[in-house]
Amino acid sequence: MDEVIVSRAIVERFAQKFAQSMDLDVAIVGGGPSGLVAAYYLAKAGSRVAIFERKLSIGGGMWGGGMLFNEIVIQEEAKRILDEFGISTKKFQDEYYTADSVETASTLCSFACRAGVKVFNGISVEDLMVREGVVIGLVINWTAVEMASLHVDPLVVRAKFVVDATGHPAEVVQVLQRKNPVKIKTPSGSFLGERSLWAEAAELSTVENTGEIFPGLYIAGMAVNATMGGYRMGPIFGGMLLSGEKVAKQIQDRF
Amino acid sequence: MDEVIVSRAIVERFAQKFAQSMDLDVAIVGGGPSGLVAAYYLAKAGSRVAIFERKLSIGGGMWGGGMLFNEIVIQEEAKRILDEFGISTKKFQDEYYTADSVETASTLCSFACRAGVKVFNGISVEDLMVREGVVIGLVINWTAVEMASLHVDPLVVRAKFVVDATGHPAEVVQVLQRKNPVKIKTPSGSFLGERSLWAEAAELSTVENTGEIFPGLYIAGMAVNATMGGYRMGPIFGGMLLSGEKVAKQIQDRF
Amino acid sequence: MDEVIVSRAIVERFAQKFAQSMDLDVAIVGGGPSGLVAAYYLAKAGSRVAIFERKLSIGGGMWGGGMLFNEIVIQEEAKRILDEFGISTKKFQDEYYTADSVETASTLCSFACRAGVKVFNGISVEDLMVREGVVIGLVINWTAVEMASLHVDPLVVRAKFVVDATGHPAEVVQVLQRKNPVKIKTPSGSFLGERSLWAEAAELSTVENTGEIFPGLYIAGMAVNATMGGYRMGPIFGGMLLSGEKVAKQIQDRF
Amino acid sequence: MDEVIVSRAIVERFAQKFAQSMDLDVAIVGGGPSGLVAAYYLAKAGSRVAIFERKLSIGGGMWGGGMLFNEIVIQEEAKRILDEFGISTKKFQDEYYTADSVETASTLCSFACRAGVKVFNGISVEDLMVREGVVIGLVINWTAVEMASLHVDPLVVRAKFVVDATGHPAEVVQVLQRKNPVKIKTPSGSFLGERSLWAEAAELSTVENTGEIFPGLYIAGMAVNATMGGYRMGPIFGGMLLSGEKVAKQIQDRF
Amino acid sequence: MDEVIVSRAIVERFAQKFAQSMDLDVAIVGGGPSGLVAAYYLAKAGSRVAIFERKLSIGGGMWGGGMLFNEIVIQEEAKRILDEFGISTKKFQDEYYTADSVETASTLCSFACRAGVKVFNGISVEDLMVREGVVIGLVINWTAVEMASLHVDPLVVRAKFVVDATGHPAEVVQVLQRKNPVKIKTPSGSFLGERSLWAEAAELSTVENTGEIFPGLYIAGMAVNATMGGYRMGPIFGGMLLSGEKVAKQIQDRF
Amino acid sequence: MDEVIVSRAIVERFAQKFAQSMDLDVAIVGGGPSGLVAAYYLAKAGSRVAIFERKLSIGGGMWGGGMLFNEIVIQEEAKRILDEFGISTKKFQDEYYTADSVETASTLCSFACRAGVKVFNGISVEDLMVREGVVIGLVINWTAVEMASLHVDPLVVRAKFVVDATGHPAEVVQVLQRKNPVKIKTPSGSFLGERSLWAEAAELSTVENTGEIFPGLYIAGMAVNATMGGYRMGPIFGGMLLSGEKVAKQIQDRF
Amino acid sequence: MDEVIVSRAIVERFAQKFAQSMDLDVAIVGGGPSGLVAAYYLAKAGSRVAIFERKLSIGGGMWGGGMLFNEIVIQEEAKRILDEFGISTKKFQDEYYTADSVETASTLCSFACRAGVKVFNGISVEDLMVREGVVIGLVINWTAVEMASLHVDPLVVRAKFVVDATGHPAEVVQVLQRKNPVKIKTPSGSFLGERSLWAEAAELSTVENTGEIFPGLYIAGMAVNATMGGYRMGPIFGGMLLSGEKVAKQIQDRF
Amino acid sequence: MDEVIVSRAIVERFAQKFAQSMDLDVAIVGGGPSGLVAAYYLAKAGSRVAIFERKLSIGGGMWGGGMLFNEIVIQEEAKRILDEFGISTKKFQDEYYTADSVETASTLCSFACRAGVKVFNGISVEDLMVREGVVIGLVINWTAVEMASLHVDPLVVRAKFVVDATGHPAEVVQVLQRKNPVKIKTPSGSFLGERSLWAEAAELSTVENTGEIFPGLYIAGMAVNATMGGYRMGPIFGGMLLSGEKVAKQIQDRF
Repeated sequence: MDEVIVSRAIVERFAQKFAQSMDLDVAIVGGGPSGLVAAYYLAKAGSRVAIFERKLSIGGGMWGGGMLFNEIVIQEEAKRILDEFGISTKKFQDEYYTADSVETASTLCSFACRAGVKVFNGISVEDLMVREGVVIGLVINWTAVEMASLHVDPLVVRAKFVVDATGHPAEVVQVLQRKNPVKIKTPSGSFLGERSLWAEAAELSTVENTGEIFPGLYIAGMAVNATMGGYRMGPIFGGMLLSGEKVAKQIQDRF
Repeated sequence: MDEVIVSRAIVERFAQKFAQSMDLDVAIVGGGPSGLVAAYYLAKAGSRVAIFERKLSIGGGMWGGGMLFNEIVIQEEAKRILDEFGISTKKFQDEYYTADSVETASTLCSFACRAGVKVFNGISVEDLMVREGVVIGLVINWTAVEMASLHVDPLVVRAKFVVDATGHPAEVVQVLQRKNPVKIKTPSGSFLGERSLWAEAAELSTVENTGEIFPGLYIAGMAVNATMGGYRMGPIFGGMLLSGEKVAKQIQDRF
Repeated sequence: MDEVIVSRAIVERFAQKFAQSMDLDVAIVGGGPSGLVAAYYLAKAGSRVAIFERKLSIGGGMWGGGMLFNEIVIQEEAKRILDEFGISTKKFQDEYYTADSVETASTLCSFACRAGVKVFNGISVEDLMVREGVVIGLVINWTAVEMASLHVDPLVVRAKFVVDATGHPAEVVQVLQRKNPVKIKTPSGSFLGERSLWAEAAELSTVENTGEIFPGLYIAGMAVNATMGGYRMGPIFGGMLLSGEKVAKQIQDRF
Repeated sequence: MDEVIVSRAIVERFAQKFAQSMDLDVAIVGGGPSGLVAAYYLAKAGSRVAIFERKLSIGGGMWGGGMLFNEIVIQEEAKRILDEFGISTKKFQDEYYTADSVETASTLCSFACRAGVKVFNGISVEDLMVREGVVIGLVINWTAVEMASLHVDPLVVRAKFVVDATGHPAEVVQVLQRKNPVKIKTPSGSFLGERSLWAEAAELSTVENTGEIFPGLYIAGMAVNATMGGYRMGPIFGGMLLSGEKVAKQIQDRF
Repeated sequence: MDEVIVSRAIVERFAQKFAQSMDLDVAIVGGGPSGLVAAYYLAKAGSRVAIFERKLSIGGGMWGGGMLFNEIVIQEEAKRILDEFGISTKKFQDEYYTADSVETASTLCSFACRAGVKVFNGISVEDLMVREGVVIGLVINWTAVEMASLHVDPLVVRAKFVVDATGHPAEVVQVLQRKNPVKIKTPSGSFLGERSLWAEAAELSTVENTGEIFPGLYIAGMAVNATMGGYRMGPIFGGMLLSGEKVAKQIQDRF
Repeated sequence: MDEVIVSRAIVERFAQKFAQSMDLDVAIVGGGPSGLVAAYYLAKAGSRVAIFERKLSIGGGMWGGGMLFNEIVIQEEAKRILDEFGISTKKFQDEYYTADSVETASTLCSFACRAGVKVFNGISVEDLMVREGVVIGLVINWTAVEMASLHVDPLVVRAKFVVDATGHPAEVVQVLQRKNPVKIKTPSGSFLGERSLWAEAAELSTVENTGEIFPGLYIAGMAVNATMGGYRMGPIFGGMLLSGEKVAKQIQDRF
Repeated sequence: MDEVIVSRAIVERFAQKFAQSMDLDVAIVGGGPSGLVAAYYLAKAGSRVAIFERKLSIGGGMWGGGMLFNEIVIQEEAKRILDEFGISTKKFQDEYYTADSVETASTLCSFACRAGVKVFNGISVEDLMVREGVVIGLVINWTAVEMASLHVDPLVVRAKFVVDATGHPAEVVQVLQRKNPVKIKTPSGSFLGERSLWAEAAELSTVENTGEIFPGLYIAGMAVNATMGGYRMGPIFGGMLLSGEKVAKQIQDRF
Repeated sequence: MDEVIVSRAIVERFAQKFAQSMDLDVAIVGGGPSGLVAAYYLAKAGSRVAIFERKLSIGGGMWGGGMLFNEIVIQEEAKRILDEFGISTKKFQDEYYTADSVETASTLCSFACRAGVKVFNGISVEDLMVREGVVIGLVINWTAVEMASLHVDPLVVRAKFVVDATGHPAEVVQVLQRKNPVKIKTPSGSFLGERSLWAEAAELSTVENTGEIFPGLYIAGMAVNATMGGYRMGPIFGGMLLSGEKVAKQIQDRF
């Protein structure tokens, strides 16, 4: 057992994986439920997909359930997606199923990785690459650099399509708007912000409005409602899963 | 879709799960690789097992690989455990295999949950219950309460056996020693602290010294080396997995 | 004495109390003097009332008196309310009475609890539920989660009426306005903010403007002046008590 | 309504109350359950008693129940004390009663104030006055001064007896030991620190060891177990109430 | 030597001084050079004057000289004011004199106190009292309360005239504008903010624009330039001293 | 008015003052009451004296009086020192006089400066120069550098005698002990730490034990009690003033 | 070896260097690559040049390479500048060269110093001197003072020309706009902010737009793109070097 | 210009450089003056040398001169080393030369890099590798990971010799002692800590005691005095340079 071989193995394998992921079919920002589901379906269909997640751990806001009670609720129409991942659900009453939030978060991530998705964790998206009105890639940096307030230049990743699956903050849409004089496909042409909680309306509109918000840039999950002025949802995750599935199909149709 | 039903479903399901887990066969503290492996094997063998993890996410120090390069190394003799979980490994050179750290962390957690392990995340172990020289349970609180410096009383969980799988800090062993005038099974009778890095020696001693350090309290993973004055390891995880497997067997033999 | 029974008793009793309070007649946000008085009168009249308070302790800004000198002043017309709670007052000069701030805060809370009010402390109101122009409930989370900057979903509580008794920040009114494109019943249609201190004018307008500011949402106490552009008050509490009493009557009339 | 009269009323009334409380029969440090019960019984028996509490609110660690579930448990033999304060209890099973933590905290404080106890909140005890082997008073300062790290001299309060009811940290006992070369009445002559949780043993020893730990200085509540090396308790409060009652009797017997 | 008498002496003397200062001729906010000079001349002329200073120490930004080099510069026409206070100056070259910044700060304060000015240090001005378009007093609180983020009500002080001598932030002018819909006597009717550094122009305009900016509210020192859009000055203090002298004369003429 | 001349005047005058103060008769560390009184008498007697003070303002803990009530108490025998500085005192009762804390702090500083003392404020003493068992100077740095956690080397000042007048922390004595294997003139040979408050004993011992604690190093004021295990004092300042006077005489006798 | 001589040597030499640099030909703000290159060429051509840098170290954002991988890229046309400084470059592929970021940062700084540039590090530019529409100097302070939140006046430096080479924040341009009602030479007359990353366009526009943005004020390096609404660049440094060279020529032509 | 090529060039070049530096002749920890000089001479003599520096910038404590006055002093015997690097010095008086601290820091670094030293900046040494009583390498991590308090495993670097040039904290020596039960070559066998400032003695002992403190581990620069209980130096750098030169010779002799 030679520690230097261990270190070299890690650096070499990461450098290869990272260099290969600098030219992607799809770059998904955010490793929460909609991002993981989208990545899984795209990878299964053969695309080169990577997820870029700000935190070290993957799973987003799902780990904590509701108010730290680590259970989540899924409505009937989305149950088939959890079934596909082998996640156990329990019926609470008609139309309402519960699942363990830890099991759900880890299993979605596990399946995505095993389907071939490359996950780059501990990495923040600082900016985009935009060329002649089209988003063509991400500008990334270590989250640790940002947390430590160091002044260090970023690197870039090119992608045919970018998906903003960053949830409430819709970070990618916001950086696009803050740094470029562009209009996005909302009624007003700009970011609208999430409205108060209305789970039913939110679930519907999340899925309905999933799609391309600017050439090359898709939105999925709670970033949809945040961008389009939709409603907030709470700890019910059916819409997230369906939105991830839908954005995967939409992008798949572009190839 | 009624939000109040969603809220009630979550509170009710959590309250049941929590109340049922207040009297356990095995309480494992720490959701890193050794804790997850131990929990998985114990649950598969039919024990009532729960993991209590300080953070919201499970997986411990594994997510970040080495220096944020998200790959890990496994030696040949531990590869069969990753194989059992379906985690893909790549040979780097004789005896050395690499795996993706995100895939490994999430898959270990997913398998443990699906084997029946209950995971309580966002929960810190503040103290133990010790009765006539035997550890009989945990004193727990929300990590958020600790982070917010609130003054709130804890609750308790009883267990036939407790496993300290908290890694470098060996939190359970340390609280046992700090709050009680007891001797533990180390050469000096007290906590020794981890020594400098020596991967090979560390890998061996982790597994060898896995076991019961005080009546009712087992140690596994890096907490073994920290407690026994063993060596540090770095981003090589074979010893962790084997230690988790071993502690599961040792406890299983007690029933 | 079995600690696990203690833990189970606490979890079970809280889960029942919490689940029963998810469908309320009146949800009062803020446990300061106006909220406590309102809750007390509503509970005495038979309503199902709960208070949601951000801090662990109840009593709001009253504990510290004026500049940490823990006395408060009450004018003659409000003295009868303190009398009803059995709080001792001393005449300072005509029209001005003083009371001990600690006695007043604790006694108001004690009477409210004993009248049947359910108090949920350590809980923040993150958002509202608004359905077709009517406020129908609260979106809540542990304050500790917010203080620890954790990313955890909230739960909800439904109520026939919501009272914003959060004092200077008027948190409920502000979140309603920030997250929804609505007009409230102020001259300008939006939140106006508190003006400089003028105790006499403030005392009058607090009581006069207590009422429904948006369908389903009432304001009481200092939140009234903050919302309506009224004056600041200082450590004189008559208007607060009278406002709490008034809002209780207004809501009682709606049943 | 003249604001200057309001200000003068507050300053004048506080200055009187404070000056009168500079020479006390009993100074109780800490406004948690044992301190409030002790103060209540002493005041009822005619002593001049004041409580000095570090926080603005009174009630100590009781507000948060167990893990923020705001209920507490009381065993049968202490139920009569809650009955005396008019606090409602519910039987959970034989020997175990629950009470609402908010109702209990506020009602204990309310009764103490109305029995004549003076409460000085927002005040920290920095040090003691010790004269020829006897504690004769407190050295106090605003907690805000300490929190703001300002360099400001303290003032003093003289008392025939001081009670340390500061809970786990046993602040008064610790400052006595840190700043003076004295022995206290523990087996080793010095502060021992609390041991791990064992509710039954803790409940018994809290009451048994309540008493004078150094001439002029009594300990009550959790400060007893912390000082004497007793066990931790958790969210069960019978011992606290009985300890407060006992220390009141012990001191009463000295007059 | 009885410590309780020491404590009572301090509380009693402060309470008297504070109560007497609740109805003033002139309330000066800020204890820097212009505030001290203004207070000194007003007190010498027989007015009841108090200074309210946020910090514990008096002297404002003067202590640190320029870039921590603790010397200041005074131009010839202001030298006579330092002469009146007995502060030694050294000629640097024609028109430019230097003085020790520590000697200047402490001597200005010493002379003001000995002339009868009451100084309340460690006190922040949170707000004003405004009645029918006239400033009639201050709303004050301990700075320590603000620094410790405690929620405590303020007290008030009434004054015939208020002087904002808070320097760059012009805190009193800003709180007047932020909390009230009023116009002040600047070209635009509102606060303009300080411009880049131009010592000569700044020195002239500071003195020229010293005066009543709103009924009952005067500005002096750097608050003049900040309010009127004047220039910044740097470590040259003639204009400050002359502005303090001028505002004292202007107010004196109103009596 | 040329700003560059202003800047040059300040830099040149400071550089001269600083360079001249690098070889002193007496270096006093700490600008509280004892340090100021000592410096004043030494400078009046013709010594080259400088004060080095960590904060920007001079006056130490005196500004805040007792608990922010800005008055102090002086006993009869020390009143003559305040009289010499022209500070007004009021008799409270036999033997007890009060003075305004702001007037006292600023006037002591003003007189010291005008007597020729050089004050270097905003400067921390990081270390000493010790040569063959004798303290021969100070190692100093900007306090701002320390507060900003910058890594910057210090400069030095040589002095025939050093006085530690840093109050409770006795910083100079402590750095001497921490960094050098030496014995100081206390019963145990090392720093003893301050005991609980006993004003009368403290006042006497402060003055009695003022003197040379190590060759070249004197202690004065509260640093005396801290070093010698004496008692704490509270807001009574006679001992401080007398200690400052005594140390000045002791050092004067050495020339 | 006498430490006081060491201290005097440092203070004297710094005071001379600082005083001589208070009247400059060119004041460059920011010690990153464009500032260093500009300073080097101007000093070589005989101008009196100084760099003012906020941090203690010089080199700006170059030290960290891209994402902490300490290499940078240079395109072919800028290679001749690195060659002139003797910095080694390696060809990666046609048009792309890499260099070690540490070697590049330190060597640029070393050459600038040795060419006669005075560097003042640890100094922040708080403001400007503007006289009749022309920038004529800088208002400076220690960065440590700002980091420690001390209230200390600045000093000034006069210069015939000022160069803003502060990179992304364009600090000098921004303070000019924030504190003065002026228009700068951008299409809109005000600061535009940097757009998303586009290396090729950014490299061209950085050089093209280098120049005088307001009478007396030049921009160079990334401050050009930030001010003019140009694109972001990433860890490619050719444009920076060429911009530094160009601004040096432009200013040289003005003499 | 393709940004992805830029990113790949940086990752590839760094990964090569890093992997090649995992097996070194000499690993120097700390990029201050002694580390840079040592590295320069070793690289010139043909060794494979790398410097690991905690900060992003190289130069250590030299940048800030003394008290931010950015000049340093060098004694005559060390001047020849600065001459070899082409750093300009000015004679202050016999034996004392001054140099610009910025020129010195950057030029030492520039020469080291150009002599072939690999510098890894932004990297902290967490631990060592010790095998049978010999130090054989470093355990390293990103400093950003440590600053951000992330839990990420380290990597390792092997070296024939390690030099601790970390200055005052002597980080490598301290981690060796803290984590291993070993004796080092000091009189007591353990780390002694730096004594008070005495420049002359310090300069001599720094050079004299430079050498191997434990098999495989050398100390140089201020780490020598810290480890051996030597004196502190202040802003005089001759000893540092000579110590760096000496350790290079000592190690060279081992090959």
